Amino acid sequence: MKAQVLKNYDTSLTADLWVAEENVPDPKIVKSTDVIVRIGGAGVCRTDLHIIEGVWKPHMDPTGDKLLPLIMGHENAGWIEEVGKEVEGLKKGDPVIVHPKITGGTCLACRRGFDMHGPGSFPGLDCDGGYAEFICTSERNIVPLPRSLAPKEVAPYADAGLTAYRAVKKATRHLLPGQSCVVIGAGGLGHIGIQCLKAMCAADVIVVDKSDASLALATKSGADQTVKADGNEVEAVLALTGGAGAEAVIDFVGEKGTTAKGLAMTRPMGSYYIVGYGEDIRIPAVDLIISERNIIGNLVGTWAELTELMALADRGLVELATAEYKLADANRALHDLNAGKIHGRAVLVP
Amino acid sequence: MKAQVLKNYDTSLTADLWVAEENVPDPKIVKSTDVIVRIGGAGVCRTDLHIIEGVWKPHMDPTGDKLLPLIMGHENAGWIEEVGKEVEGLKKGDPVIVHPKITGGTCLACRRGFDMHGPGSFPGLDCDGGYAEFICTSERNIVPLPRSLAPKEVAPYADAGLTAYRAVKKATRHLLPGQSCVVIGAGGLGHIGIQCLKAMCAADVIVVDKSDASLALATKSGADQTVKADGNEVEAVLALTGGAGAEAVIDFVGEKGTTAKGLAMTRPMGSYYIVGYGEDIRIPAVDLIISERNIIGNLVGTWAELTELMALADRGLVELATAEYKLADANRALHDLNAGKIHGRAVLVP
Amino acid sequence: MKAQVLKNYDTSLTADLWVAEENVPDPKIVKSTDVIVRIGGAGVCRTDLHIIEGVWKPHMDPTGDKLLPLIMGHENAGWIEEVGKEVEGLKKGDPVIVHPKITGGTCLACRRGFDMHGPGSFPGLDCDGGYAEFICTSERNIVPLPRSLAPKEVAPYADAGLTAYRAVKKATRHLLPGQSCVVIGAGGLGHIGIQCLKAMCAADVIVVDKSDASLALATKSGADQTVKADGNEVEAVLALTGGAGAEAVIDFVGEKGTTAKGLAMTRPMGSYYIVGYGEDIRIPAVDLIISERNIIGNLVGTWAELTELMALADRGLVELATAEYKLADANRALHDLNAGKIHGRAVLVP
Amino acid sequence: MKAQVLKNYDTSLTADLWVAEENVPDPKIVKSTDVIVRIGGAGVCRTDLHIIEGVWKPHMDPTGDKLLPLIMGHENAGWIEEVGKEVEGLKKGDPVIVHPKITGGTCLACRRGFDMHGPGSFPGLDCDGGYAEFICTSERNIVPLPRSLAPKEVAPYADAGLTAYRAVKKATRHLLPGQSCVVIGAGGLGHIGIQCLKAMCAADVIVVDKSDASLALATKSGADQTVKADGNEVEAVLALTGGAGAEAVIDFVGEKGTTAKGLAMTRPMGSYYIVGYGEDIRIPAVDLIISERNIIGNLVGTWAELTELMALADRGLVELATAEYKLADANRALHDLNAGKIHGRAVLVP
Repeated sequence: MKAQVLKNYDTSLTADLWVAEENVPDPKIVKSTDVIVRIGGAGVCRTDLHIIEGVWKPHMDPTGDKLLPLIMGHENAGWIEEVGKEVEGLKKGDPVIVHPKITGGTCLACRRGFDMHGPGSFPGLDCDGGYAEFICTSERNIVPLPRSLAPKEVAPYADAGLTAYRAVKKATRHLLPGQSCVVIGAGGLGHIGIQCLKAMCAADVIVVDKSDASLALATKSGADQTVKADGNEVEAVLALTGGAGAEAVIDFVGEKGTTAKGLAMTRPMGSYYIVGYGEDIRIPAVDLIISERNIIGNLVGTWAELTELMALADRGLVELATAEYKLADANRALHDLNAGKIHGRAVLVP
Repeated sequence: MKAQVLKNYDTSLTADLWVAEENVPDPKIVKSTDVIVRIGGAGVCRTDLHIIEGVWKPHMDPTGDKLLPLIMGHENAGWIEEVGKEVEGLKKGDPVIVHPKITGGTCLACRRGFDMHGPGSFPGLDCDGGYAEFICTSERNIVPLPRSLAPKEVAPYADAGLTAYRAVKKATRHLLPGQSCVVIGAGGLGHIGIQCLKAMCAADVIVVDKSDASLALATKSGADQTVKADGNEVEAVLALTGGAGAEAVIDFVGEKGTTAKGLAMTRPMGSYYIVGYGEDIRIPAVDLIISERNIIGNLVGTWAELTELMALADRGLVELATAEYKLADANRALHDLNAGKIHGRAVLVP
Repeated sequence: MKAQVLKNYDTSLTADLWVAEENVPDPKIVKSTDVIVRIGGAGVCRTDLHIIEGVWKPHMDPTGDKLLPLIMGHENAGWIEEVGKEVEGLKKGDPVIVHPKITGGTCLACRRGFDMHGPGSFPGLDCDGGYAEFICTSERNIVPLPRSLAPKEVAPYADAGLTAYRAVKKATRHLLPGQSCVVIGAGGLGHIGIQCLKAMCAADVIVVDKSDASLALATKSGADQTVKADGNEVEAVLALTGGAGAEAVIDFVGEKGTTAKGLAMTRPMGSYYIVGYGEDIRIPAVDLIISERNIIGNLVGTWAELTELMALADRGLVELATAEYKLADANRALHDLNAGKIHGRAVLVP
Repeated sequence: MKAQVLKNYDTSLTADLWVAEENVPDPKIVKSTDVIVRIGGAGVCRTDLHIIEGVWKPHMDPTGDKLLPLIMGHENAGWIEEVGKEVEGLKKGDPVIVHPKITGGTCLACRRGFDMHGPGSFPGLDCDGGYAEFICTSERNIVPLPRSLAPKEVAPYADAGLTAYRAVKKATRHLLPGQSCVVIGAGGLGHIGIQCLKAMCAADVIVVDKSDASLALATKSGADQTVKADGNEVEAVLALTGGAGAEAVIDFVGEKGTTAKGLAMTRPMGSYYIVGYGEDIRIPAVDLIISERNIIGNLVGTWAELTELMALADRGLVELATAEYKLADANRALHDLNAGKIHGRAVLVP
């Protein structure tokens, strides 16, 4: 099959071509529960740029010679192509979205429903992903799509959307009418998060971003209030929340000072949800104690949560802005992302 | 002051006049935390008809000679008239809604936030209520109204609305996207409940009622599906929920067979919320066990929940259809209610 | 292999021999995740008597000719004998306990951790169980045993213990110091439940039973108070709980009037957990509402909960009284159980 | 009355006398819900040393001339001396413990049960406390004591014990059998926390401390494992928890590096509870995210939680080591505390 292959790191992100089209062997069914998916859409994610830069190399590839060449692409959707001999209920042609983390299903984390915490692999990061015609995954990673949803329109939900959904879901379990939720960052994850919040609770949603275009997207996504991150965003949020801050703050940025500001926007007894990353969280212990605030880490969601997110999408309660690129144009998509030219999420299509 | 006073029970509900206008002494501040409210609206509730019938007599008035004469009216809103000398933050003229249960605030139930479970009194049921110009309540029962909400428009939230809200809130704490909630009965409580559900979660809301007019109100209130209670409503709900029923069923009727049907509409691991009443709930223990279903009792909400409901109303997320009657026309309002002529909730105004 | 086989129903439970020893083919690995377990202990359960009586026939065997002959035995522990080719981490000789419900692991219930709610089979009830030398189950049903626990000593935890544990666990999630939990029935399930309660929360445990021997076992199991079920047990419990009842009541009997009594022992805002069965639960809707009580159904626990229960057993926090019988003496064990001669749980051993 | 009065700060903690015995006017009932308590025991807390040092001055006394002279003492128990005219259910001589935070009871935080989050005063910190013969508090702060508990034996529960209890309670709501809880610091709070953990859940309790004497106290308090904080405590805890850390870590120290170490001992999906303070918590955002860990702030508990803690004490499930000093010897008690000579908690008695 054809695939776009990463063969060398580019720490400065200055090369013209990061991935190269190659003919590689088709993936093969090995285990009785393996599933081959024909790719209908593969999301292009900022994490892919970080992989190219070598940011993940120390974690995924410490000796520097085993991971590459790598087919990136961890946000995949498409159609069932072939299934292992013990797979039931799936047949060739079924439209599906693919949960990104492949786990065995037998560890305690998996058995309690937290599959993404089990040991396993993450195609596109530590083994071959979806910048290709086919991908091999497991029966346990398949979420069938309703007729209303085409693979290329939903692929980015597999990771970006699912991560936003999980953080939002945690917050909506305690947010009540009359309370507020601040969303920091109305980009790819943020605009999904805002829609999920509006669908799943009645809290006031206040969105903070540096960009007017993002704030316009926030408003379109349902934000009740928007706040320009112009240096006075903490004061602005406090003014909108009776002086004390919001019961939940979801930080999709996590760098350039948002962590300290996000905590400063969090009301006593409230929770600060960290999703984006890039800087250290730093706070005096006494400040957390006298206000009894919480800092909540957030990973990608569970398989069951991906079915919940698809239910929201199926009902039109969340919508995703996508920009399509041919698989052959993967380099262009990656460069456009790096240049900040993509509004919404880029998706590679066959 | 003028008041509409119940002086005799009418077990057959056939009398022309149930309450009589009288001049009674104005209520007086006794405790330092007492508050006198000038009535702006007093909801007329089916419970009032039950009081007239004497249904509550065995509970509230076992010897039959102490409760009457009684000023009914347990859904009250208006303006602060006078406050006890240790009341802070409230002043004459402030618009307010009145939580119906007066409790001391010092018992363990109160201190955990469940004020309605503390010992106390319930004006309109066991002492004088709001079918009058003034009512005496406590500082702890006052919820200030935002400017957007007039007392006469919100009075029925104090009990009917608050009861619907509490049951719905419990269900929304576990309802997830892709799941369903059945509402049985789209009347006074039901149409508030539907709106709260739509505001507070993303579950599919399926409404069951006998009346086409009520189902039309359900649709206007946001129901995703409506089902006519024509004898096949269980089958219809099962068909809408993949054959297994809904994760939550909220029964605002609780009589004439709805309890058995409601349980039959409840999915394994689901919960049946009982709000309306009139019949026995009866189910083989084994049926609850093999499906692991729950039956959840629901009382009126807490003071904090009344503030939450007012936040929903303030944002336009719930609206109440009211029919106004002058206080002097209390008999007409009660008879119209008894005759099924009221759509929404009747409210007595000055 | 040798097996004790049920070949005919005995509705009056009067036959001398209910099961017959036969040589049957050894179970075989079919799926790549199948596991054969050599039985070290097979619990003898009252459900087995119900199967012999034909109580389950309408559910499991409606046409009356497909289920029998059946090898009963749904509480199994032993040693790994053979594993399917894709099973990892288990090898011949490993001591294990077997979760009773075999499910596929891919449905939403399974993926959320509630495996016992997925579709599947239940060896000993609807296919061959553990009254034999070997049983075939799935990798997903295996819980490895720590060295401290021998299969024959723990087999009854697989169903009886796990059911008691799950109900208790739900109650301990809300029981607080100063609150009370009533346990109705200190038999096979009850004496495990009492020990789990004492290990997992600080509530006062009040045990109600008809039998002095059972109450003695309750005390030994850690009960703080015991109440003889002599007709005044409701009053006795109310007297022990300040007049209002217990925050949780766990009913391991569920027949002969315990459901009404158990509900009468449940405090406002409290929960009545139904585990045993045999009669209808019946209560006026209004009674649940004005007290805001809940009725909670309880099924056998999850695989993860079986690991939790084994952790309790490993630490000596729960202990099980067992009476051993040779597999060849299965009829005697069943008759002893039917005659009420067994204290604790009977276990068939090789 | 006699009182021990702080008249000057001593930033170096070098003075011989920090407080001086004076005759001050008896406190007087002002509000109808005020309560005067005759002090039976006043806990001496490290916070008192911090007050003397002036650590709290910037917060409580920014202009430096309004707070002093101050009667310290925020952990008080004794007997009702006099009650305001609307106080019910309390009479002179009743033994009581006093919740430390006086709040009005009408704000939303109070009404939801989180009284310590309402605005109010904190006797001993910002107004006169219990280093005296009497203290004035509110009806809302009084928890009656059972006969088993003498005021002087329980006073330190009012703040130190209640803070430990609240953090532990949060952890026990999610800790399951087979899981672990690390306690950092087995001092005044820690040894109460360990006992609460053992009473309220079945998790393995691993205690980390620098001092052998404290570890001996930990073992006596019920610790399952102890770990000497010798620089390798993280590795030791990981070794005891299968390499991944504990599901809950409760840090009663919060300084000298325990926050980083505590987080390193926290398992993926686990929670780190911060109680002690003195340093900054600092962690890369990405580390919280990929492991999905939480940092939970903890304040003193609610009034209801003080009743729960008293229930534990009443049953002998927690015990407090106290060292008694006469009120007149307050300076000696404070100096002994400062010199590390007190094992358990010092209590001033009449």
